[in-house]
Amino acid sequence: MKKYQHGGDVYSNKTEYDFSANINPLGMPESVKIKLRESIEMCEHYPDTESRELIREIALFETGVTGKKVPGDMIVCGNGAADILYRTMALLKPSKVLLPVPSFSEYEKAVKEIGGEIKYYYRRIENDYRVDERILESIEDVDMVIMCNPNNPTGDVTDAELMERIVAECERCRVKLIVDECFMDFADEGLRCRKLYDSENVIIIRAFTKICAMPGIRTGYSISKDKAFNLRLRQTGQCWGVSVPAQVAGAEAARVLRDSDYIKDTRDLIKKERYYLATELEKLGIKVYQSEANYLLFYSERELCETLLKNGIAIRNCENYEGLKKGYYRIAVRKHEDNKRFVKYMQEI
Amino acid sequence: MKKYQHGGDVYSNKTEYDFSANINPLGMPESVKIKLRESIEMCEHYPDTESRELIREIALFETGVTGKKVPGDMIVCGNGAADILYRTMALLKPSKVLLPVPSFSEYEKAVKEIGGEIKYYYRRIENDYRVDERILESIEDVDMVIMCNPNNPTGDVTDAELMERIVAECERCRVKLIVDECFMDFADEGLRCRKLYDSENVIIIRAFTKICAMPGIRTGYSISKDKAFNLRLRQTGQCWGVSVPAQVAGAEAARVLRDSDYIKDTRDLIKKERYYLATELEKLGIKVYQSEANYLLFYSERELCETLLKNGIAIRNCENYEGLKKGYYRIAVRKHEDNKRFVKYMQEI
Repeated sequence: MKKYQHGGDVYSNKTEYDFSANINPLGMPESVKIKLRESIEMCEHYPDTESRELIREIALFETGVTGKKVPGDMIVCGNGAADILYRTMALLKPSKVLLPVPSFSEYEKAVKEIGGEIKYYYRRIENDYRVDERILESIEDVDMVIMCNPNNPTGDVTDAELMERIVAECERCRVKLIVDECFMDFADEGLRCRKLYDSENVIIIRAFTKICAMPGIRTGYSISKDKAFNLRLRQTGQCWGVSVPAQVAGAEAARVLRDSDYIKDTRDLIKKERYYLATELEKLGIKVYQSEANYLLFYSERELCETLLKNGIAIRNCENYEGLKKGYYRIAVRKHEDNKRFVKYMQEI
Repeated sequence: MKKYQHGGDVYSNKTEYDFSANINPLGMPESVKIKLRESIEMCEHYPDTESRELIREIALFETGVTGKKVPGDMIVCGNGAADILYRTMALLKPSKVLLPVPSFSEYEKAVKEIGGEIKYYYRRIENDYRVDERILESIEDVDMVIMCNPNNPTGDVTDAELMERIVAECERCRVKLIVDECFMDFADEGLRCRKLYDSENVIIIRAFTKICAMPGIRTGYSISKDKAFNLRLRQTGQCWGVSVPAQVAGAEAARVLRDSDYIKDTRDLIKKERYYLATELEKLGIKVYQSEANYLLFYSERELCETLLKNGIAIRNCENYEGLKKGYYRIAVRKHEDNKRFVKYMQEI
């Protein structure tokens, strides 16, 4: 398995059940699909280089989430969250980046692409791979810290109080803190660290990819109080990067998240099904890590990927994550019928 | 007007007639729209990180265009041609780039973003802004040459024999030659320089944006014989950059261009209407530059943009192009009714 390989490749393996990509099992909201259909005629024009409607809708959604005004000039849009990540690196060109691992491998790839060096902070197995206070001692000699929260693939959310101390230490050391919150909408409301919105040192990365089940569309964004940074990030890379479908679908996704029970329904489903999956796997003697997200990391000595693939089930082999090894797997939390099917196959093998 | 500002902004100025973006007046092929509608359900999955179907279709189309086999491993796909450009710079990091100007401003922006220096080659007004042999003397001390062919905004195609000499000089000096052919499908078949496909030093950039009137979708690609470069370019930037709609629409666009008279019909229309527009403008004493593309550069001492905008017509003010000045304008060649309307307003003012 290659270092930067990911889950969700439905093109190589035609599987009936894709547990390898962490997408909302409720699927793409119907109104987003309708808006996508309507947007096709608009595709004869260039996208709005300033993503004006999209930014307006995101600002309203984020204002609702945080309970305080998030103005449009705190937001920059991208061709998915990954685009925001690569453009941020192209702009800031950090020379040394602190990366708690295991985590999403694109951070490392993006940093290395601009010639930056990675300083690993190893999450400890004794602490169930959670970030602990030791991280505060590692910030002084880097120019950037990248946190994935909830973390991929472990699913844990860094304690809000510890996150505030990380923010404070980054401010003291004048270090940029990138917090990737692409899975935050799946976690309980109380886990979110609202202080992130108040610091000029913080850049939050978010996307509609997972929560609105639209990974094929590519709509991500960043939120930061550092308005000079936002202005420069908007000018980094091509100006037409966010396509018409991405802008239209993203704007509608923001409206859905704001005006409906979609997030609440998602959280209720995920919480229940995550508990079901974890409990059933533990009954099989499998070590399952505590997750607040829509996926679970577990360890099994058996080789599972190929066996499950024969039964039409794809899961994510996590042996290529820095800090993990052979035997670690990640599964998405899906609808009950699918999860039952997965558990049944696991019981058989 | 800002240095890197472009035409086609239908969001700031609601105009009835947009002559500021150079899009095929025949519009997006109907079958591309149908495929886009069908692709919406697929958007619940990540895009194919290897763009396999898209590359297969482009390879077949390009094989037809060149009359010799263009295999898939010569092709890399991107989120529009601009994405290919920025990723190429991120990968090759040229320190000094020769740029014939006036030309598309994104080349300069992309080079400067990675810290590269621009060496201008000024196309001469005495030579109607065409590239001439002088360029051969300017290649030795750079690491890259970027040619726009047909050139934007002048519309001229560099003579194929001169282009071959540029390729030879780039090979001799081990200099990469980027040739942006985004408007080549509008030009007469005979103008294309087929030798570009044979050199490991050349990277051709193309897109369906203009010829298939799908700028909102973002599907571009590069063609190069340098397979090591292609492999590395594919790994530069995020792996999900080409969205599902972009892959589906691009694959269908390639099929349409290959199997129908769409290109021929476009060329016939553009040739006739370009002649009409040029002739009528010249009758008004306006200097119009010889163009092989779907747009015309002209010079007028009158301020035109605001006056025309009042009549619902947007044109491209070209004063922010390096090497041009106030008084240069670019108009797209559109359908006869629209062109007549434009001529009528020009006669009035």
